[in-house]
Amino acid sequence: MTIYFEDLKIGAEFFGQECIADKEEMLDYAIKNDPIGIHLDEEAAKHSPFGSLIASGGYVITLWYRSCIPIFSRIAFLGAFDWHFKFPVPVRANDKLRCIIRIDGKRASGKPGRGIVTSSQRVLNQDDREVISAEIVWMVATRPSASPLETAC
Amino acid sequence: MTIYFEDLKIGAEFFGQECIADKEEMLDYAIKNDPIGIHLDEEAAKHSPFGSLIASGGYVITLWYRSCIPIFSRIAFLGAFDWHFKFPVPVRANDKLRCIIRIDGKRASGKPGRGIVTSSQRVLNQDDREVISAEIVWMVATRPSASPLETAC
Repeated sequence: MTIYFEDLKIGAEFFGQECIADKEEMLDYAIKNDPIGIHLDEEAAKHSPFGSLIASGGYVITLWYRSCIPIFSRIAFLGAFDWHFKFPVPVRANDKLRCIIRIDGKRASGKPGRGIVTSSQRVLNQDDREVISAEIVWMVATRPSASPLETAC
Repeated sequence: MTIYFEDLKIGAEFFGQECIADKEEMLDYAIKNDPIGIHLDEEAAKHSPFGSLIASGGYVITLWYRSCIPIFSRIAFLGAFDWHFKFPVPVRANDKLRCIIRIDGKRASGKPGRGIVTSSQRVLNQDDREVISAEIVWMVATRPSASPLETAC
């Protein structure tokens, strides 16, 4: 059943699926989009502050999206337009990542048919260390039958 | 010639390469990582606030990285760890994107061999409209021969 703006409760948590940082895919992403030493060159990465290859931030974000697939397949999501996030711990090949989303707040939008939701999102690795810590603002569709009055929470 | 932390001037601008939002790649990204209606289903997108298919934010970020390849191939970049960004205008198939980076500030890091740089980044489409507007904090390596005194700016 689709979760509309009206259905989202402040404090509710949603749990994403586990995704693996596959080494081949991680390197392919870096070759195409972010071909710098720390993402591609084992020797250069060894002498960097990270000590070994780390994933491109763009690939970490891709895995974050992938982990969230089961969540956003349920929510009447219309996009995220304001993001603030940090990468506290780097991602390395074979890390197992999963996302946890918490609903922090919601308010009416100036436009009909949608509401604004603020969320905290954490992506954890297999050691429960945060590889992404984020505050994201979404738009979520209101229930199709809702009157304008019902959407103003 | 590699640009180290000491070489970055506040106010300097760097210009990325043009990248196209290829429709096939855009849909493939959405299928694998963000399979929701506004990114994949022409009919659902037509009835959304966007009026037609738009790219996943993860794919827009991927193109942003790709546009920046010529910039980060020159800078002794060690990663971006704090991001704040917005997507003011959606990206659609065949949009032509390019990134412009401005150095806003720099300071010494508590750790040797690196400095902290704050930057504004804009990704513009073919109509010069901002599809990403971002404030990003980087780590950049100091020049290998630099003494600790030289790195503290």
